[in-house]
Amino acid sequence: MVELKTENSTVSAKKFSSHLSAYLNQIHNKDQGFYTAPRDSETVKEINEFASKIKGKYNHIVILGIGGSALGPICLKQSLTHSFTERVCDCVRAREVNDFPKIPHSIPELFIIDNIDPILIKELEDVIKLEKTLFIVITKSGTTVETMSQYYYFRDKIDEAKLNARDHFVFITSHSKGKLREIATEEKITTFDIPEKIGGRFSVLTPVGLLPAKLIGIKIEEILEGANEMCDKFLSEDESRNIPFQLASIQYALEREGKNIHVLMPYAQKLSGFADWYKQLLAESIGKKIDNTKKIVHTGITPANALGATDQHSQLQLYNEGPNDKLIMFIEVENMGPEIPIPPIEAANLTFNKLIQIEKESTENSLTKNNRPNLTIKIDSVNERALGELFILFEGATAFLGEFYNINAFDQPGVELSKQLTKEKIHGNSQT
Amino acid sequence: MVELKTENSTVSAKKFSSHLSAYLNQIHNKDQGFYTAPRDSETVKEINEFASKIKGKYNHIVILGIGGSALGPICLKQSLTHSFTERVCDCVRAREVNDFPKIPHSIPELFIIDNIDPILIKELEDVIKLEKTLFIVITKSGTTVETMSQYYYFRDKIDEAKLNARDHFVFITSHSKGKLREIATEEKITTFDIPEKIGGRFSVLTPVGLLPAKLIGIKIEEILEGANEMCDKFLSEDESRNIPFQLASIQYALEREGKNIHVLMPYAQKLSGFADWYKQLLAESIGKKIDNTKKIVHTGITPANALGATDQHSQLQLYNEGPNDKLIMFIEVENMGPEIPIPPIEAANLTFNKLIQIEKESTENSLTKNNRPNLTIKIDSVNERALGELFILFEGATAFLGEFYNINAFDQPGVELSKQLTKEKIHGNSQT
Repeated sequence: MVELKTENSTVSAKKFSSHLSAYLNQIHNKDQGFYTAPRDSETVKEINEFASKIKGKYNHIVILGIGGSALGPICLKQSLTHSFTERVCDCVRAREVNDFPKIPHSIPELFIIDNIDPILIKELEDVIKLEKTLFIVITKSGTTVETMSQYYYFRDKIDEAKLNARDHFVFITSHSKGKLREIATEEKITTFDIPEKIGGRFSVLTPVGLLPAKLIGIKIEEILEGANEMCDKFLSEDESRNIPFQLASIQYALEREGKNIHVLMPYAQKLSGFADWYKQLLAESIGKKIDNTKKIVHTGITPANALGATDQHSQLQLYNEGPNDKLIMFIEVENMGPEIPIPPIEAANLTFNKLIQIEKESTENSLTKNNRPNLTIKIDSVNERALGELFILFEGATAFLGEFYNINAFDQPGVELSKQLTKEKIHGNSQT
Repeated sequence: MVELKTENSTVSAKKFSSHLSAYLNQIHNKDQGFYTAPRDSETVKEINEFASKIKGKYNHIVILGIGGSALGPICLKQSLTHSFTERVCDCVRAREVNDFPKIPHSIPELFIIDNIDPILIKELEDVIKLEKTLFIVITKSGTTVETMSQYYYFRDKIDEAKLNARDHFVFITSHSKGKLREIATEEKITTFDIPEKIGGRFSVLTPVGLLPAKLIGIKIEEILEGANEMCDKFLSEDESRNIPFQLASIQYALEREGKNIHVLMPYAQKLSGFADWYKQLLAESIGKKIDNTKKIVHTGITPANALGATDQHSQLQLYNEGPNDKLIMFIEVENMGPEIPIPPIEAANLTFNKLIQIEKESTENSLTKNNRPNLTIKIDSVNERALGELFILFEGATAFLGEFYNINAFDQPGVELSKQLTKEKIHGNSQT
């Protein structure tokens, strides 16, 4: 259960006085489907069937994708698998030894290659064996230049090694358009659809997030159960139940007062990837030049990520003493596993579990004393269900924010110019 | 060689009209030593001797530290070692196989545990063998509660396993004060000093960064050569040579015009840790409530990190279309290793090396066309020398910024309240 706690902070939950149902209607009219994805049991069935079919076949799974095609999988891997899964490398599998008994050995390792840095690509090749690798190519448009470049590169490698492309590639792309879909149809490569109405940054609960998650042992049905629970809240016209609406109202009210940097600071190591996922969601959705009436508005909230307790020793000085231009959003985790006692420090009877909670409260209280707005989102533990809830909580809040600003939260016109310049230079390059 | 390029951006390099030598004097008077550390050849000798002595003895090195005690080592590891070193796990070493010929096998793996999350600590224990592990405990004050808790915890484990603490711990701390120094003296544990006048976030070129770097095969002499080269520039009274001063002048001028979020966006996967290191440096140094005359000023520039090309698909929409409140600082890398050809995309003759440069230029040009200030710091390649230069470039610029704002860039009073609240609660806890 996710809980939004604002009562003991300086945030007076100034709700954006509004007609909740009207906003929900407007979101429906934009035909966004992020809140329908968790109900798509047909896709879950397909994913499970595929996972059964390929079980034990691969040691390495490599995602080729960028932006919304990578941040969801990165977040799921970091949040829901062992912190050090990569210790189970090929040779451990080959020897069937039990060097690392607490890391499941039958699960392939997931690499997410979301950059075109040539050094990264070379170093990936140092550690994967093509014959034991499955590449998952993810691009909704089927034309993303970074992802298609990666695809063509590794496709050549697979062909050169006389391996069958159908055994080493899976695509996740649009059902009906784009180069990747063409290749899929022509070459009969297994392909999963990204629903047309769901944009990249809202796609974590489609095959984009669910397929790789399933392949590394994450319980995707439980993610969806959590998501559905939060969807019910998001679609509720009762403001007291609608946590995404409450969150968006606080964010909007504070931004209007000049708190235009919103920091997501989970107190849990494994949620650091969640903050990166949210950075894209907030930045791309709300950073807009024109509103729905074509007026120039330059809206935007700058997302920042921080990690508790670590960043108390990095960012807290600025939050407490610098310009009062931030909202700090904590994620607090109630249950952090078995209590681990700390040998006596100055006679205190402490565990790491208690210490991290104490530090979170101290940070919160110091911010409040310095009149710095902050709120806390509380979850039971870092598990599948909570992640499902968190995804929809923030996606829903972001959708509401779009309505409050009267902008389109679902497009990204501001990256077109850079894409076009890249295209022109690639072609210029081919002529030189 | 590091180069600062601003001519083709909208930044008109409005220099903070000033007396450079006066600022240098003021920095000297604060007695900060970050620019003397790179000349400390005695420390390098000690580190090299220690490294020779323990060669081959450990498979795992675990840093226990937080904030400035961790961000430097994280940055050095990410920047200057293979992206996937962790593939060489114990069993590879034991078999002496050559599964990963391109990763040096004789080098121990470095874990940096900069959080007190109990799940992280438990999972670390799943993958290290105490008898093959060296713990490096880093805290300048020798009292940091997070680090001391970690120390006491693992000290108990070492004692329980009947291992000799002197073989499994090294300390890096103040020469003369703090609990850790007391333990060191009492128990004769090898200890390296952090010079009194160098604060945590400026300490990467002391043993804090250099010792772990050396132990994982990084050429620390070359780091220091680069650093010394930049120190000469930093200490130069000729403004045209003083790149740190130029950078600070641009940052200050733009902040005064309302660009109060400074984004560091390297176009190189391995520099993502550098951006995290810089976030602490800028946030803690410049985020201050009072100036040198005790006037309440609440200065601060909010640092943000982004990674090219990846974050073109995450943050660029906001940078181009959102509020015009940012300075984007690119790091461009001239040489990214051997050219890796991309099989023909639409008849272009491309490599990943060219593509990433093209994308950087396109991003830069799109920002400039949208009137968004940006600048580029150019380095030859991601190597030891360049890192040394970059550390001093940003440390020097941050020191100058402190002078421009007339604040103390070297303290951090704003985290004291949170620390005090934590202490009170720990003791409250011990009484319940």
